[in-house]
Amino acid sequence: MRALNQRAVLDRLRMLGAATRPQIAKDTGLSKPTVGQALVDLELHGLVRPIGRTSAGPGRSAVVYEPDPSAGYVLGVDIGRQRIRAAVADLAGSVVARVDERNRCRTAGALVRTVSELATQTVSDAGLTLSDVVVKVIGTPGVPTGRSVHHAPNLPGWERAGLLDELESALGTELVVENDANLAAIGEYASGAARSVGVFACIMVGTGIGMGVVVDGELFRGAHGAAGEIGYLPFGQSTRDVQRGQFEDAAAAASVLDMAARQGLSARSAREVFDLARAGDTRALDVVREEGARLAFLVAAVTAVVDPELVVLGGGIGGNLDLLCGPMEEVLRRTTPLVPRIVAGELGDGAVLAGAVAVGLESARELVFHRRGAVTL
Amino acid sequence: MRALNQRAVLDRLRMLGAATRPQIAKDTGLSKPTVGQALVDLELHGLVRPIGRTSAGPGRSAVVYEPDPSAGYVLGVDIGRQRIRAAVADLAGSVVARVDERNRCRTAGALVRTVSELATQTVSDAGLTLSDVVVKVIGTPGVPTGRSVHHAPNLPGWERAGLLDELESALGTELVVENDANLAAIGEYASGAARSVGVFACIMVGTGIGMGVVVDGELFRGAHGAAGEIGYLPFGQSTRDVQRGQFEDAAAAASVLDMAARQGLSARSAREVFDLARAGDTRALDVVREEGARLAFLVAAVTAVVDPELVVLGGGIGGNLDLLCGPMEEVLRRTTPLVPRIVAGELGDGAVLAGAVAVGLESARELVFHRRGAVTL
Repeated sequence: MRALNQRAVLDRLRMLGAATRPQIAKDTGLSKPTVGQALVDLELHGLVRPIGRTSAGPGRSAVVYEPDPSAGYVLGVDIGRQRIRAAVADLAGSVVARVDERNRCRTAGALVRTVSELATQTVSDAGLTLSDVVVKVIGTPGVPTGRSVHHAPNLPGWERAGLLDELESALGTELVVENDANLAAIGEYASGAARSVGVFACIMVGTGIGMGVVVDGELFRGAHGAAGEIGYLPFGQSTRDVQRGQFEDAAAAASVLDMAARQGLSARSAREVFDLARAGDTRALDVVREEGARLAFLVAAVTAVVDPELVVLGGGIGGNLDLLCGPMEEVLRRTTPLVPRIVAGELGDGAVLAGAVAVGLESARELVFHRRGAVTL
Repeated sequence: MRALNQRAVLDRLRMLGAATRPQIAKDTGLSKPTVGQALVDLELHGLVRPIGRTSAGPGRSAVVYEPDPSAGYVLGVDIGRQRIRAAVADLAGSVVARVDERNRCRTAGALVRTVSELATQTVSDAGLTLSDVVVKVIGTPGVPTGRSVHHAPNLPGWERAGLLDELESALGTELVVENDANLAAIGEYASGAARSVGVFACIMVGTGIGMGVVVDGELFRGAHGAAGEIGYLPFGQSTRDVQRGQFEDAAAAASVLDMAARQGLSARSAREVFDLARAGDTRALDVVREEGARLAFLVAAVTAVVDPELVVLGGGIGGNLDLLCGPMEEVLRRTTPLVPRIVAGELGDGAVLAGAVAVGLESARELVFHRRGAVTL
């Protein structure tokens, strides 16, 4: 009973925010003495903390409690071909440290070491150690299946058997490895452009191309976790290597650079191409127009299959919706009567990390209660 | 209580099949007298019937009961551009009458009348009247939304406002109008090639092209019911009319005939082309190879987006998987590493009807209990 009461009180504070003992009693239907005992227990275990006293209104002032955000932490890591990012957030979801580094790794082993170092550094920047971290969530391109990651051709060696064991050795257990576009979708749903949208697709276009589909707040994964692997969308051109994906070949960063080179532009990154276009360079604008047409193909295909209410576009290339939306809309109008609303992601390059933190928090809040609680349910 | 007990007894008989009073008592946890009273009530209302007595085993012989299949009927109608089909099934799902007719209608009004006449004829063939039919389910191309059907360019006038009201005036209430490919998917799930498959896509290719996606037994409809409208998949070619859909233009029956004509074949139907190919005609085989390549594009696109465990192919063209699978597999191997299992539908041209009956039965069983029961829950 005591654990159940603690749980009810904690859930009340988490869902509706800070409150006093009488408020909690009213909302939970528990008696004031029961709530008082639960608050004492929860404070003892470091799960709630007092943050002040009420002053307004009639009657005696009362202590206001909130869930203690420092009761546990989650670590999110976003492994991209270009950059690796890590963030630590407290149980309230506030990011307390964030690190962002270039990915120079050429082997899976080096990448595992880098991820481990970056994680340690981020945790240490937050004044914590890895043991304070309750759950770690890693976003990666490809499809994590069993103890390996499949379909991640952009990360050398990353598909090797047992990779997830290596990551677990480096970072400890309570480790979740999830597709990066899936995490970005969860991030945009939790705190970005897709808040409370029923059916939406989050399309990430950068070094690679991926998509997360969310239905009523849950990821749609398909039969083998490969739903949204839209880099493999056929685009009418054979690739040298079937593992690379025709659509990724045609619309990811390398293709933007190819198109720019064919226009005689000597840009070194897709970003430069978009900057030139924004400055009015007509050759760069041609590249943007062609890229927009390709992304319109993608949106039309996704819409014909899953009919999303909203498409959130993000990633290093997709984030340039200000330039892309004109050409995309023009092509879509000629292509299909089914055109969803298309918006830019609101979380920028933090979308995957935000999703990792959101996924981590869900299980961390459970785990912390069970670990810190003196009693077991 | 009496209604609840009747319900428990009826559910037991529906889910586990015919049984005696002691068997039902054992399975439901109700006392034998309670079960006996419920059986008397249910038989009185025409919801169960005795079908014989046990003879084997020790003890007295007991009466065996089953749900009375004639307690109510469902009507399914499949409206296709080429043919209209109707079936009446009893509550056990057995089809008791089926009619199949050429669709010669050139206006929506004529089509509504034809559907109504066909429905009346089928019901009368079964020795029933429309009032014996508890639920009617109509499968149509396009997306039923509100009181109209959208995106059904193959049926002239079919998208007009209030069409569903006209159908209801003709056939009565308790009418469900559903996308035909969605019903085919439900049919193949209930009694065909996709029994108990978690995530699958049922692709129908004939006069038009459609798809139903089923996840854990439920249709995946998207945000506006247009999920699976894969006729609108972009295929790199503009159409005269954006409402027709690039992929439907490229791979439905009319396109097969176009390809055949370009080969110098004077086939009058897609079926003739496949018959010629089956007889070894090399020009027809070329057409089949090209059609297979286009369907491979479709399967690759659908798989990149939703990752089905299984693709069921049906419809007048899709049903020729014996000829199409070779060319499809060859192209898929070169296109993507994500290749699902592809099988032919098991229900042939009865898939939509089977789905209509399955959908109808689900609500008919509920309705019949409430209407026939002397007591209301």
